Amino acid sequence: MGLKVYADRTSQPSRAIIIFCKMNQIDFEEVKIDLSKGQHRTPEFEKINPMKKVPAIVDGRFKLFESHAILRYLACSFPSVSDHWYPNDLTSRAKIDSILDWHHANLRQGAGTYVFHGAMAPAFGLPLNAQVAEQGKKLMLSSLSKIELFWLRGDSRFLLGNSQPSIADLSLVCELMELEVVDSEERERILEPHQKIRDWMENVKRATHPHFLEVHGILYELKARLESRRNKVSTNL
Amino acid sequence: MGLKVYADRTSQPSRAIIIFCKMNQIDFEEVKIDLSKGQHRTPEFEKINPMKKVPAIVDGRFKLFESHAILRYLACSFPSVSDHWYPNDLTSRAKIDSILDWHHANLRQGAGTYVFHGAMAPAFGLPLNAQVAEQGKKLMLSSLSKIELFWLRGDSRFLLGNSQPSIADLSLVCELMELEVVDSEERERILEPHQKIRDWMENVKRATHPHFLEVHGILYELKARLESRRNKVSTNL
Repeated sequence: MGLKVYADRTSQPSRAIIIFCKMNQIDFEEVKIDLSKGQHRTPEFEKINPMKKVPAIVDGRFKLFESHAILRYLACSFPSVSDHWYPNDLTSRAKIDSILDWHHANLRQGAGTYVFHGAMAPAFGLPLNAQVAEQGKKLMLSSLSKIELFWLRGDSRFLLGNSQPSIADLSLVCELMELEVVDSEERERILEPHQKIRDWMENVKRATHPHFLEVHGILYELKARLESRRNKVSTNL
Repeated sequence: MGLKVYADRTSQPSRAIIIFCKMNQIDFEEVKIDLSKGQHRTPEFEKINPMKKVPAIVDGRFKLFESHAILRYLACSFPSVSDHWYPNDLTSRAKIDSILDWHHANLRQGAGTYVFHGAMAPAFGLPLNAQVAEQGKKLMLSSLSKIELFWLRGDSRFLLGNSQPSIADLSLVCELMELEVVDSEERERILEPHQKIRDWMENVKRATHPHFLEVHGILYELKARLESRRNKVSTNL
């Protein structure tokens, strides 16, 4: 029984895992769990991840959830994974762990809250919430400044001055890709002052080509659907 | 130059690191960063942790922040640390990583928000906020139920059915100890239905005796100060 990845590609950590597997020639079966249809709340999926969230994996008889834990596990258990993704060197690995841990209460919480309550909620049958979205945006903007200031100093192509991407680059950039579903002008306004963030996103896209674009295809479809919905709403006003 | 731990013992992740070092005969110098005096915002401390948060460590010339990354690093770099804290076995380690990652957006966010906005804010010169505290409480209560249901099944003394504590037990129980500063009756009401959580907290306390109590001393002082303040306010009403 090989590796199964339970994922919905509209979920940013799901995408990170799928891209990681494809980049590292890890054989896996992708099991689609459609969040918009509530498939993460079925009794079958609860046996895979009792927290009812994607992504989750089953490797043989071993079950695991939480995307950063999964990325660490895959990096350590598949010999085909290059060292730069999650280095064996103790201090290099610790610096990557530090970014991954920081991510949860900063960029993830900020961008996740902003994008969901500011744009994505209608795709899940929920109303937008401008006030909550604004709080998320504030945290996201301060997180972007911190990433530039501390981890993308100088001519750094990837986080921590690395010349090749780590699982932290992949996780954080997949999170930022969620901004695609926000109104395009608003997205431009957010990213325009952050040249280093934009360059870094391009570097991660290029380093994981063609898998990055392929796996993000569903996000561009969602973007088109939400844009058409926004246009309809503004025409009706 | 040995290990320096920059910490404020009123901060739950700071306490986890200090207890961990003491339990594992790791030589370290504790550098107190008094949060209530804003010492985390000084230019000197910014050179240690640009995020201006405790805990942070300096080991020789190596600097690190984020408590889970620090615990992982210490467990891997000091040979005196017993394997049960962060096992070498890949799947056991991954399960612990999964709990540590889950913690950020669940128990930590819930309990941290509830305790700070519901009790601790005045110690930092800030007003209480009942509405935000209530949101935190809700997330904390659902997190407690999940811990019991998924990780403290059966007669498990520690998380994941382990017979000895891991860094996940230490991190999560230090977080829960923050409840000491909440009104005592309210704390009873919260923990009363959660026998497994109470037993688990006792098991972690016992397994890390006498360091656990010693390092938590400051929390009991803070509890007394906040109780006396609450009594004064209710007398004046």
